[in-house]
Amino acid sequence: MTTLLTDPVGLASGLIRCPSVTPDDAGAIGLLAGWLERLGFTCHVICSATGGPAIQNLYARRGTAGPNFCFAGHTDVVPPGAGWTIDPFAGQVMNGRLYGRGAVDMKGAIAAFVAAIARRGDNADSVSLLITGDEEGPAVDGTVKVLDWLTAKGETLDACVVGEPTNPARLGDMLKIGRRGSMNTRITVTGTQGHVAYPHLADNPIPRLLEMLRRLTAEPLDHGSPLFQPSTLALTTIDVGNPATNVIPAQARAAFNIRFNDLHSSASLEEWIRRTVAEIGGDYDCSIEVSGESFLTQPGPLSAAVSDAVQRITGLRPEFSTSGGTSDARFIKNHCPVLEFGLINQTMHKVDEHVALSDLEQLTEIYQAVLDRFFEAE
Amino acid sequence: MTTLLTDPVGLASGLIRCPSVTPDDAGAIGLLAGWLERLGFTCHVICSATGGPAIQNLYARRGTAGPNFCFAGHTDVVPPGAGWTIDPFAGQVMNGRLYGRGAVDMKGAIAAFVAAIARRGDNADSVSLLITGDEEGPAVDGTVKVLDWLTAKGETLDACVVGEPTNPARLGDMLKIGRRGSMNTRITVTGTQGHVAYPHLADNPIPRLLEMLRRLTAEPLDHGSPLFQPSTLALTTIDVGNPATNVIPAQARAAFNIRFNDLHSSASLEEWIRRTVAEIGGDYDCSIEVSGESFLTQPGPLSAAVSDAVQRITGLRPEFSTSGGTSDARFIKNHCPVLEFGLINQTMHKVDEHVALSDLEQLTEIYQAVLDRFFEAE
Repeated sequence: MTTLLTDPVGLASGLIRCPSVTPDDAGAIGLLAGWLERLGFTCHVICSATGGPAIQNLYARRGTAGPNFCFAGHTDVVPPGAGWTIDPFAGQVMNGRLYGRGAVDMKGAIAAFVAAIARRGDNADSVSLLITGDEEGPAVDGTVKVLDWLTAKGETLDACVVGEPTNPARLGDMLKIGRRGSMNTRITVTGTQGHVAYPHLADNPIPRLLEMLRRLTAEPLDHGSPLFQPSTLALTTIDVGNPATNVIPAQARAAFNIRFNDLHSSASLEEWIRRTVAEIGGDYDCSIEVSGESFLTQPGPLSAAVSDAVQRITGLRPEFSTSGGTSDARFIKNHCPVLEFGLINQTMHKVDEHVALSDLEQLTEIYQAVLDRFFEAE
Repeated sequence: MTTLLTDPVGLASGLIRCPSVTPDDAGAIGLLAGWLERLGFTCHVICSATGGPAIQNLYARRGTAGPNFCFAGHTDVVPPGAGWTIDPFAGQVMNGRLYGRGAVDMKGAIAAFVAAIARRGDNADSVSLLITGDEEGPAVDGTVKVLDWLTAKGETLDACVVGEPTNPARLGDMLKIGRRGSMNTRITVTGTQGHVAYPHLADNPIPRLLEMLRRLTAEPLDHGSPLFQPSTLALTTIDVGNPATNVIPAQARAAFNIRFNDLHSSASLEEWIRRTVAEIGGDYDCSIEVSGESFLTQPGPLSAAVSDAVQRITGLRPEFSTSGGTSDARFIKNHCPVLEFGLINQTMHKVDEHVALSDLEQLTEIYQAVLDRFFEAE
């Protein structure tokens, strides 16, 4: 049976039937590479295993002239979890919807992109796909490694659309043009254990820790910037683990996550955090881990091309947004302008994940229109 | 071998050789009752087992006339723990010291009291001993039950000295005339779990809990009263137990202990705690457990008798104090004036617990002088 490369539903169903829960590839990268080779692409499978099991990633390109328009995404999915009413890896169509883990996050978008290229037919435009099998996992053996490989080969990207599900309610609602940065801080305060009846003989670490947290959360980090929500600091845990009601504990620990906009950098926030906890002082440890800086692809030709395509197909003018969690766009933005537009995110990571067949068709038309407009403009 | 009832060292050593770690009696109550019967006491062993294993307690009295002077204490001890350089249950004498678990807390004081009575010889004075095997444990089957038994029998106490180790450094330093109250509070705040990137879709319980704790600890509870230290609030634990850096947790818990003086009651503090946490509101649970109210035996004839006896024997005028942890005096104060005076508390609950033989001798002389003075004054 020949797969119809212009049909996003069939392509997406085929990808869903590979149970590619991170770090397992389960044949997904090979399936995709086979389709792309039939469309004239040259495929490179880039393996990496620094973070644990070997991960397969794909870089595929057709055309040699510039500019090189890249579509980025991932074939790996989060585990299905319990409670599905339908086989999560069967790729079944029911009542106008395609069901399965990865239907919206994001095998459906990969399928739409392949179908969009197939519908445009043979041409000289340079189009590439950067697909990783390590986006839902630690992301150390995925997009970062492919970008390093591209740099080493002298291969450049000129514009990129990431196919993550960006729309809250309807296809066309939202285009992501950047993301807040993210960093995690852990503070451990050490005191001296003692009996609650003799607090002067002990040094309770809890009040010191709470005063550090109070100062860090006393004021909002900012009130937002033109294209960003306000930065947020979320206390994620505080732990002492002292079961004795008559004992002052020796140690107390807390952790918090900061999502920050373009008014900060991780360096400026780290300086502020370290200065604030040092004001309280005493015996403590503060460790900070940066997941990513904030970034913004300034509204311009790329966002106009995507917006126009979305509006032409859906009738909706997408909101420019920088909200939400991290994505691999945080790595790609160091190489070229990057935006994110994909399916509706309501069922991502949930049971009975599904996509409307009409959304898959419209997304294919949008991607096709983006490519048309991008290369027309050149 | 006949035990020499006037020798506190031999008596204390005999009690230490009973490994009476709560709730085990290990023969301690029977040994003591045997000595007291030889001294003409009528002994009642009162068993109680509402809190778990059966506990043995002793009420012994000699004399029928009023007033009834009571000596109170406990034969149970805390577990020895690891690290002793000498057998904790051998009752060995070395370098002028008697070693063993309970040497100061408080088998030594029981021995001193028995020896003091023996030295005073036969007389018509009413003297009693109220000894429990459940002071270091939950204390539900101990002194409280004996006091109930006394009330049921129509038996009254007119004055009481508890033999707990009260002296910080030297025998004669400190006489305890009351104690702060103690109460434990647990607060659980419930919110709504969510992703840190979307804090507006979650309800983080941690900031609400921290604001409750901040308001409860913002001001000192008081600055002390004439015979009491300032009240204290000690945060003993905060627990969330959320290992995920990208998740806002659903629940956060905290606990604190308050030691309070005579400027408060548990009822006034409970009202203040409940009002303060209600100001923050939301979904929370606040449970409060009262261990004991504060109490004070006003300086008067009993404290004068003990002070004078201490000064006559040691040359030191003891400080009147209400500091430290709880003791069974909190129950006895509802029946008669009660004070606490015993050995030096430096090694209590520690490894190689020990008492100087000279301290045992002096404490015997003090207790004898207390009895002389108490009954002379009548």
